[in-house]
Amino acid sequence: MLRYLNAGESHGKGLMGIIEGLPSNLYIDIKFINNELKRRQRGYGRGKRMDIEKDNIDILAGVRGSYTIGSPLSLYIENKDYENWEEKMKSIGKIDEEIITKPRPGHGDFAGAIKYRQNDIRNILERASARETAMRVAVGAIAKLILKEFNIEVYSYVTGIGDIEDSKEHSLEEIAEADNSSIRVLDKEMEDRIIKKIDECKLKGDTLGGSFKVVAKNIPIGLGSYSHWDRKLDGKLAQGLMSLQGIKAVEIGEAIISAKNFGSTVHDQLYYDDGYYRETNNAGGIEAGISNGENIELKGYMKPIPSLRIPLKSIDMKTKEEFLAHKERADVCAVPSASIVAESTLAWIIASEIIIKFGGDSIEEMKFNYDKYSNYIKTR
Amino acid sequence: MLRYLNAGESHGKGLMGIIEGLPSNLYIDIKFINNELKRRQRGYGRGKRMDIEKDNIDILAGVRGSYTIGSPLSLYIENKDYENWEEKMKSIGKIDEEIITKPRPGHGDFAGAIKYRQNDIRNILERASARETAMRVAVGAIAKLILKEFNIEVYSYVTGIGDIEDSKEHSLEEIAEADNSSIRVLDKEMEDRIIKKIDECKLKGDTLGGSFKVVAKNIPIGLGSYSHWDRKLDGKLAQGLMSLQGIKAVEIGEAIISAKNFGSTVHDQLYYDDGYYRETNNAGGIEAGISNGENIELKGYMKPIPSLRIPLKSIDMKTKEEFLAHKERADVCAVPSASIVAESTLAWIIASEIIIKFGGDSIEEMKFNYDKYSNYIKTR
Amino acid sequence: MLRYLNAGESHGKGLMGIIEGLPSNLYIDIKFINNELKRRQRGYGRGKRMDIEKDNIDILAGVRGSYTIGSPLSLYIENKDYENWEEKMKSIGKIDEEIITKPRPGHGDFAGAIKYRQNDIRNILERASARETAMRVAVGAIAKLILKEFNIEVYSYVTGIGDIEDSKEHSLEEIAEADNSSIRVLDKEMEDRIIKKIDECKLKGDTLGGSFKVVAKNIPIGLGSYSHWDRKLDGKLAQGLMSLQGIKAVEIGEAIISAKNFGSTVHDQLYYDDGYYRETNNAGGIEAGISNGENIELKGYMKPIPSLRIPLKSIDMKTKEEFLAHKERADVCAVPSASIVAESTLAWIIASEIIIKFGGDSIEEMKFNYDKYSNYIKTR
Amino acid sequence: MLRYLNAGESHGKGLMGIIEGLPSNLYIDIKFINNELKRRQRGYGRGKRMDIEKDNIDILAGVRGSYTIGSPLSLYIENKDYENWEEKMKSIGKIDEEIITKPRPGHGDFAGAIKYRQNDIRNILERASARETAMRVAVGAIAKLILKEFNIEVYSYVTGIGDIEDSKEHSLEEIAEADNSSIRVLDKEMEDRIIKKIDECKLKGDTLGGSFKVVAKNIPIGLGSYSHWDRKLDGKLAQGLMSLQGIKAVEIGEAIISAKNFGSTVHDQLYYDDGYYRETNNAGGIEAGISNGENIELKGYMKPIPSLRIPLKSIDMKTKEEFLAHKERADVCAVPSASIVAESTLAWIIASEIIIKFGGDSIEEMKFNYDKYSNYIKTR
Repeated sequence: MLRYLNAGESHGKGLMGIIEGLPSNLYIDIKFINNELKRRQRGYGRGKRMDIEKDNIDILAGVRGSYTIGSPLSLYIENKDYENWEEKMKSIGKIDEEIITKPRPGHGDFAGAIKYRQNDIRNILERASARETAMRVAVGAIAKLILKEFNIEVYSYVTGIGDIEDSKEHSLEEIAEADNSSIRVLDKEMEDRIIKKIDECKLKGDTLGGSFKVVAKNIPIGLGSYSHWDRKLDGKLAQGLMSLQGIKAVEIGEAIISAKNFGSTVHDQLYYDDGYYRETNNAGGIEAGISNGENIELKGYMKPIPSLRIPLKSIDMKTKEEFLAHKERADVCAVPSASIVAESTLAWIIASEIIIKFGGDSIEEMKFNYDKYSNYIKTR
Repeated sequence: MLRYLNAGESHGKGLMGIIEGLPSNLYIDIKFINNELKRRQRGYGRGKRMDIEKDNIDILAGVRGSYTIGSPLSLYIENKDYENWEEKMKSIGKIDEEIITKPRPGHGDFAGAIKYRQNDIRNILERASARETAMRVAVGAIAKLILKEFNIEVYSYVTGIGDIEDSKEHSLEEIAEADNSSIRVLDKEMEDRIIKKIDECKLKGDTLGGSFKVVAKNIPIGLGSYSHWDRKLDGKLAQGLMSLQGIKAVEIGEAIISAKNFGSTVHDQLYYDDGYYRETNNAGGIEAGISNGENIELKGYMKPIPSLRIPLKSIDMKTKEEFLAHKERADVCAVPSASIVAESTLAWIIASEIIIKFGGDSIEEMKFNYDKYSNYIKTR
Repeated sequence: MLRYLNAGESHGKGLMGIIEGLPSNLYIDIKFINNELKRRQRGYGRGKRMDIEKDNIDILAGVRGSYTIGSPLSLYIENKDYENWEEKMKSIGKIDEEIITKPRPGHGDFAGAIKYRQNDIRNILERASARETAMRVAVGAIAKLILKEFNIEVYSYVTGIGDIEDSKEHSLEEIAEADNSSIRVLDKEMEDRIIKKIDECKLKGDTLGGSFKVVAKNIPIGLGSYSHWDRKLDGKLAQGLMSLQGIKAVEIGEAIISAKNFGSTVHDQLYYDDGYYRETNNAGGIEAGISNGENIELKGYMKPIPSLRIPLKSIDMKTKEEFLAHKERADVCAVPSASIVAESTLAWIIASEIIIKFGGDSIEEMKFNYDKYSNYIKTR
Repeated sequence: MLRYLNAGESHGKGLMGIIEGLPSNLYIDIKFINNELKRRQRGYGRGKRMDIEKDNIDILAGVRGSYTIGSPLSLYIENKDYENWEEKMKSIGKIDEEIITKPRPGHGDFAGAIKYRQNDIRNILERASARETAMRVAVGAIAKLILKEFNIEVYSYVTGIGDIEDSKEHSLEEIAEADNSSIRVLDKEMEDRIIKKIDECKLKGDTLGGSFKVVAKNIPIGLGSYSHWDRKLDGKLAQGLMSLQGIKAVEIGEAIISAKNFGSTVHDQLYYDDGYYRETNNAGGIEAGISNGENIELKGYMKPIPSLRIPLKSIDMKTKEEFLAHKERADVCAVPSASIVAESTLAWIIASEIIIKFGGDSIEEMKFNYDKYSNYIKTR
């Protein structure tokens, strides 16, 4: 069983993560992890903060001489701007700062302040912030390193920003090029239109949401299970994706179109030619909660960023007076970043399932067990 | 912490469930539970089996004199047709039946047979079947009885079958009438068109999917949390809904439209008039993974039933020869049933969260704690 | 991950259990399970109820043709005396029976009645009763069937009843004979003395506790882990054993003597002769929370049965008046039974760990993985 | 639900912990935490390392202005000696150090090296080391801060070192003075004898184990439950204590003596005088897995430290040759330290149970719920 906890506020000292249950002898490629962090920070339409951050991973425990040793792995991403925030954010001692009493629509401010009995909404927004996803990406990078040992690759691309959508099918080769676009789309003409839209939106002080796909290939048949509701792979993936900041809908395969079509056109027929194969993948690689050997395909739908320059009506929780929530400088669109974080989420869940299915305490043992199973599949 | 396990095959002796962590002194209304089971079994477009089943709940433990006593609650739904299946399904002794080696596209047959090393696909399909959801409805009915103590109500209706969709907004009063329609839609004209479509589909031997909404009202502010990814209410709901047979996409509030719109139009502004309120609920009652006091609104998208009369190509796993998967008599559409099961899922998750937030070992204690919190909210 | 829930009151309809996470293709030997239930019911010093019960297992789901199929397994033990208790215990409808307001010292009556806000202490004692352990034995029997596939055997014997104690070391061959004694001791002379003591105790209306050992052999090296506190095998075993009714202390290996001795005499030295071995096992087969390949040895200490004929002072919770708690007919000693239940607990935990370490969804796959690991160990 | 993960090797950069599920508005007394760390480091018979360490807590997240804010709390204890270990322990890059192939009896070296496929036993011993307990004490200190809000206090003292044992009963007032003794015993004459024994032992190069008691007062009635095996408070406490390095037996109340006595003398009779009370507490505050309002009393038995100067026979895992395991400078006895760590474990489990029972997201809400329950108890 693989698990992790993470901690850290947006403007605190940094972000921490502890991963427990990793196999030993996993090679930890620090450049790879840092590159993943960098991929999250890019994206046209992001604001200035991305420049300040330049996230870097620090491994505090669980790795020795570049390999895991069976101990919990501890990760740290320092907040390089912390000195400017120390007076506002210090953990111990009295903080003499004006408190925030004005909740912003679309954020956790209002419900969080009530739940945790906070008068100062900063105590909510610091943790509810998507800043936390940097650690999720680091954790996901470790998961990707596990997956690499089994030749499993995870990709993603942006399928839409605002009302500009890409409904074409794309090959994995095309999808693998998504990082070449500053907004991670696969169509050059679409990229131009979206960038124009982002620029216009920025001028107006508005924000945009959108959608993205995440795809994993070389998934072994048999991850997850129909046997109990909380073992279903699709359920776990839905939870993982929906738990990302701003994500409000999750789709597996071609779910939304399939819901409108006839059964005779939806279900992926099975063929055999020295191995089973399918010609379609409407199911997104999962039938009855189990991976069926096809690519796993997920789509996430993200709401527009809730911090914008155009004012939104809200209520000061102290005075009960109406005010206009707005932000002078803000990101316009975070969909490209979200697609990277979603890769991490998918990687984490698949890695967790691989550990459940193949057991083992070391990478070597896991691979022996995996190979044995792969050979067995060839006999079915 | 509330949890349950369930067991039972489609044509086995019956379905069992054990719920652990219930408060004591909860009144168990057996008629209510049976009525919920009946609601699941109805629905135009269902096949003959619904008549055989006539599910009835039997409470084996955990309730005495109609009230829970703090012990685990055990539920049983007998399969009334078991005597006709005993030779095929008996737990102990040798079974002399022809084995099933032909996996049906869209089912768990293929991946399940490989995962669990079964030559007889019956061993997969019996558990992967949606028959299991009868127990989920019973478990959900217990959850609804908890929710009633806090005046929380759960509703659902069908928003589309095939390409006939209802995109109107409906009041809770309208939604509460969904059971009056044999397909649980809210629009009479739409109902007629859908029934016609189902009839045509039946003639052709095809099947239909669709979509539904589930809504819960009187949800207290503060269930779930942004503080850690696996505490997010939206993530838990997404897992719950996605784990239902046939559900392939989950949407919270107006997620899919919101992803295309500008931030200035999406986020639900906050007002105050002797209490906070909103005029829109695009967020579906959840911001940053926490309930914000508005109605919780979920939408599920269901694929067409994968058993149909029109043949689908597949491969016999024993001979590796192609065959045509089809079923002589089958349901055409299970969306109305799925909407009932989804109510149960939502009820279960909300009840679990209420127990986490308000603690307590008895309904009385939970209510004291809940009332105290409700009064506190009035002061914010 | 293996898990189970159980339910059932002492005088209710019966006991239920659901086991989730079992590998497929495990042979379910029903006679073996029933024999385990019988072993629990025997034991000199037990009262009359054992005769009424004659527990029999009914498998309701998860097994087909005598083999597991990957589904949750559901177990049921009917209470054959239920018709005599129906009026007192029925789940639905009004119960017109005098309520019990007198808590018995040493039972959960007092604290349970307060926790669960029950005026009728029957609602507490019915579930707190050790009757529940019959289902634990059934669940443990399933676990033993898994262990048999890996040649792991679990034994137990009684090491003391009252102040008559057996401090000798015994070989596994001797321990395997424990069932030949009506009180599961290994020494004939000791047996006679204990039976005499039980008889005397019965005359006086008093009760006895004692202690027992549970031993498992052929445990693979590497179950559990030091890497995180909640992965430690000794911790899990301690929880399992301590959770049995009446057990108040748990000892691994020769812990209590070792605490008094010098380090130079306590730690089990390591030798090699075409394989590693030890000449002592003071550690009880576990070092740093990991199985080290030696026999796992646990000892449980049981308090005397708290229902006795000699009166104990207590307070009527309704009237606040003192009364004398006593029981006309009671068991004198339950240590032999407890030793059987403890076997089940140990078997369950080891089976769970085997599933974590070796993964796999079927017995075949688990065994392949296990064999591979066993071969690897020979190279270390 | 309260949970934590910790990480860190003995000679790595430091120790980390993340606690998730804490209530907001808990005052974090940093001096108190550091004092707890200091208490762990004291104790006659400890070696030199304690001087180097001088542990200090650093709070990285989850606390702002000295109060928790509902976010996960992150703790860090820097290893002040790390620069001297960097070459041996660095996480990334090649390590050019001789590997350790000689497992020490009584440690996790042998089983760990096999489980995690490590040729270098350093990769095992670094994490299996009791150094990790420093973080457990920090985590436990946070738990104690929660308990203080409910007037729950936790104490401990050493009941024996080697064969010198204290079997007297002590009042809480006496126990509260344990820190005044360098070995945390309550009897001056016994202290002298033990110190002499430790000194002699040190000369011989041997080590000592022993036992200790941990006691908690003001525990509310009703923590834990008999209703399911894994809810039992005694089971949870047994797991917690047994998971500490070196602890091999756990006793609740007077379990071992009670197992030898008659029921008529063991069970704690119940009295009433403007409130329920007992005159004895053989049950150690727990009946049927529920706290009964009496002090919770646990005893742990610790084996002698397995690193000693007197050589122990073992096998080099590379050459298969016998060698003599020994250590030039070592602690003689760690029982006083272990008693402090055990306090932390008890505090953690009780705090977790309080959060389960009283729910709430803030200290204020928890206290309201707790007070309501306390008042209810007065009516029973």
